[in-house]
Amino acid sequence: MFAASGVLAARDRDLDLLGVIVVAAITAIGGGTLRDILLNRHPIFWVTDPWYLVVIVASAILTVAYVRVGSPPSATFLVADALGLALFALSGAQLAEAAQCPPLIVVLMGTMTGVTGGVLRDIVTAKVPLILCREIYATAAIVGIAAYLALHALGMPKAPAVGTGMIVVVALRLLAIRLGLNLPIIRKG
Amino acid sequence: MFAASGVLAARDRDLDLLGVIVVAAITAIGGGTLRDILLNRHPIFWVTDPWYLVVIVASAILTVAYVRVGSPPSATFLVADALGLALFALSGAQLAEAAQCPPLIVVLMGTMTGVTGGVLRDIVTAKVPLILCREIYATAAIVGIAAYLALHALGMPKAPAVGTGMIVVVALRLLAIRLGLNLPIIRKG
Amino acid sequence: MFAASGVLAARDRDLDLLGVIVVAAITAIGGGTLRDILLNRHPIFWVTDPWYLVVIVASAILTVAYVRVGSPPSATFLVADALGLALFALSGAQLAEAAQCPPLIVVLMGTMTGVTGGVLRDIVTAKVPLILCREIYATAAIVGIAAYLALHALGMPKAPAVGTGMIVVVALRLLAIRLGLNLPIIRKG
Repeated sequence: MFAASGVLAARDRDLDLLGVIVVAAITAIGGGTLRDILLNRHPIFWVTDPWYLVVIVASAILTVAYVRVGSPPSATFLVADALGLALFALSGAQLAEAAQCPPLIVVLMGTMTGVTGGVLRDIVTAKVPLILCREIYATAAIVGIAAYLALHALGMPKAPAVGTGMIVVVALRLLAIRLGLNLPIIRKG
Repeated sequence: MFAASGVLAARDRDLDLLGVIVVAAITAIGGGTLRDILLNRHPIFWVTDPWYLVVIVASAILTVAYVRVGSPPSATFLVADALGLALFALSGAQLAEAAQCPPLIVVLMGTMTGVTGGVLRDIVTAKVPLILCREIYATAAIVGIAAYLALHALGMPKAPAVGTGMIVVVALRLLAIRLGLNLPIIRKG
Repeated sequence: MFAASGVLAARDRDLDLLGVIVVAAITAIGGGTLRDILLNRHPIFWVTDPWYLVVIVASAILTVAYVRVGSPPSATFLVADALGLALFALSGAQLAEAAQCPPLIVVLMGTMTGVTGGVLRDIVTAKVPLILCREIYATAAIVGIAAYLALHALGMPKAPAVGTGMIVVVALRLLAIRLGLNLPIIRKG
């Protein structure tokens, strides 16, 4: 999903096929790589298992083909992106929990895993990272992870708590887009 | 101090509240995180201790509130920034020393710890990193760390040598701003 | 070689002498540093051996002096850059092989070691990374590493296989420049 978003972000920039694949790969593995480095989890998830890379390259090429054939319905893309965010945020949070991080750090690490790929994508294509600008994006990840931690602490078993957290992320993200919700913007005096 | 500088740098860019906090956090912990990764010091300083994050978020919110109330005197900000640079540069240098790095690498690692946060801040907000441009910034860190190493090698006890190094950084940085000092700029033929 | 390319890239940007050295150092050690972090090879190659840094700073200063004296023939620069790419790509690939990575990851890691420095250089000087844009650059590294792996798997001893891989990288890169070869560019519908 993130690989596809990388391709879609890249096509404004006249990249060649390989450039598009590189941007897709950075978007897809950036967050997890940073998480593994920060938590000192070695080997890093994709270093010993080539299937991640195969799936990413295949997704990128499929997305390129798809974009060539017809313009993709942007709603599909936004739902896929929101699902990717939810998946990455909650999986990052669980790994940080397993590494005994305190709750505040669990939230940070999960949020980072979810959003870093997109931030790197925007840096590499020389834009101001979108998540820093307007729409509720990292906020959705933070609230969803907090919901998971709270429900789990209140006694809900792990699997449904994670599921609820993911639904919160997706719902919040899509609602924010639909209703044009934003956090207050900071301006000069 | 660095969190505050992150907030002040971010406010030109119409970021939302969370975006400002993210930029502040990146500015504040970026240098130390890179240092810990490069020296293989795990767990990374803020991963197990949530207080760093609490202080950063609180500083960012306070700075936002302060900016809203009135425009901050820029002299205060510059002094705070110079103090932050001195603190980070000397602490990074001491950790590299403890890891048995040779002196040249101690200088590099301290300088990196001092300036990386600001460089990341500028990359994330899509500017050409300021320290690469004009004012004496990294240079101040390099000279201060070298002063510390030289004084310590000549027999001065550690604490006053570190203190002297920090004073050198702050003095050089503020003098450079005051007098408009620059290193020679490299241009095309 | 990469340090020199960093200097040449930086001179459009009105950097001061230290800024130029920083860009040169990032270009020269960025790829290898990322490789060592991802493969968990500690200490990182330049952390314990100050000679890397000495050579980089010396190269940067020499290049600055050279640029001041006369404009460098761009052909020399392009050959040096292609040689640097070949050297870094093949050395990165061999280290990934030694770390038991599967072949696909060996190709990725070698390519990364070769191109990351240049990507960081472009990010730091706030350009869209060149390798993502047009010329066959990462592609040359990928094909050269694949050639090395294939020849070595077919029974050719290591040294000549590596040498052949390097020649493939350099030849492909220079041919691409000479003939204006590009991979297909991805555009909107």
